[in-house]
Amino acid sequence: MPILRNEIGDVLRDARLLQGKTLRDISSGARVSLGYLSEVERGQKEASSELLSSICDALDVPMSAILREVSDRFETAESLENVAVMPSIPDTVPELLSSMRAR
Amino acid sequence: MPILRNEIGDVLRDARLLQGKTLRDISSGARVSLGYLSEVERGQKEASSELLSSICDALDVPMSAILREVSDRFETAESLENVAVMPSIPDTVPELLSSMRAR
Repeated sequence: MPILRNEIGDVLRDARLLQGKTLRDISSGARVSLGYLSEVERGQKEASSELLSSICDALDVPMSAILREVSDRFETAESLENVAVMPSIPDTVPELLSSMRAR
Repeated sequence: MPILRNEIGDVLRDARLLQGKTLRDISSGARVSLGYLSEVERGQKEASSELLSSICDALDVPMSAILREVSDRFETAESLENVAVMPSIPDTVPELLSSMRAR
């Protein structure tokens, strides 16, 4: 299952790159150091509520849109995880069973 | 504009109360102290990604659902804020203008 701060970081970076903005553009707009913003984008730091709000403002993207995108990515991961835990149904008779029958 | 940790706290508490669970039920399930969980629910502490994940597990609610509900609440607040900043269009002639015309 993904880690929330990684997904938030990915979504923030994707939004920034989509706008053709640099880390410097957004860090100065959000009044956060470039290094810290970079760590948030790479999921190495948890952004506080206030910082996340400032980054959204600097990106001019509503918080709701960032959270919705993060939610969508979790939903995809959750559905994939459900598939992964489904019991696999073999479509051939296992070798062990075959050999038992042979006796 | 709302603060993210407040909205997350509200959504977590609402989910817990909807299930008729106590703080004790969820705090023991999520292996977090009852006091800390209570602070998270009241928006007094930022929950780490790992803690939020544990609380979701204890509630048996997917992270995506919590985030979607938080996103929806932000969207509502954002649309209300847009209404609030719309210029008000008076349906009567302001007194100052009336008096200027009177001259």
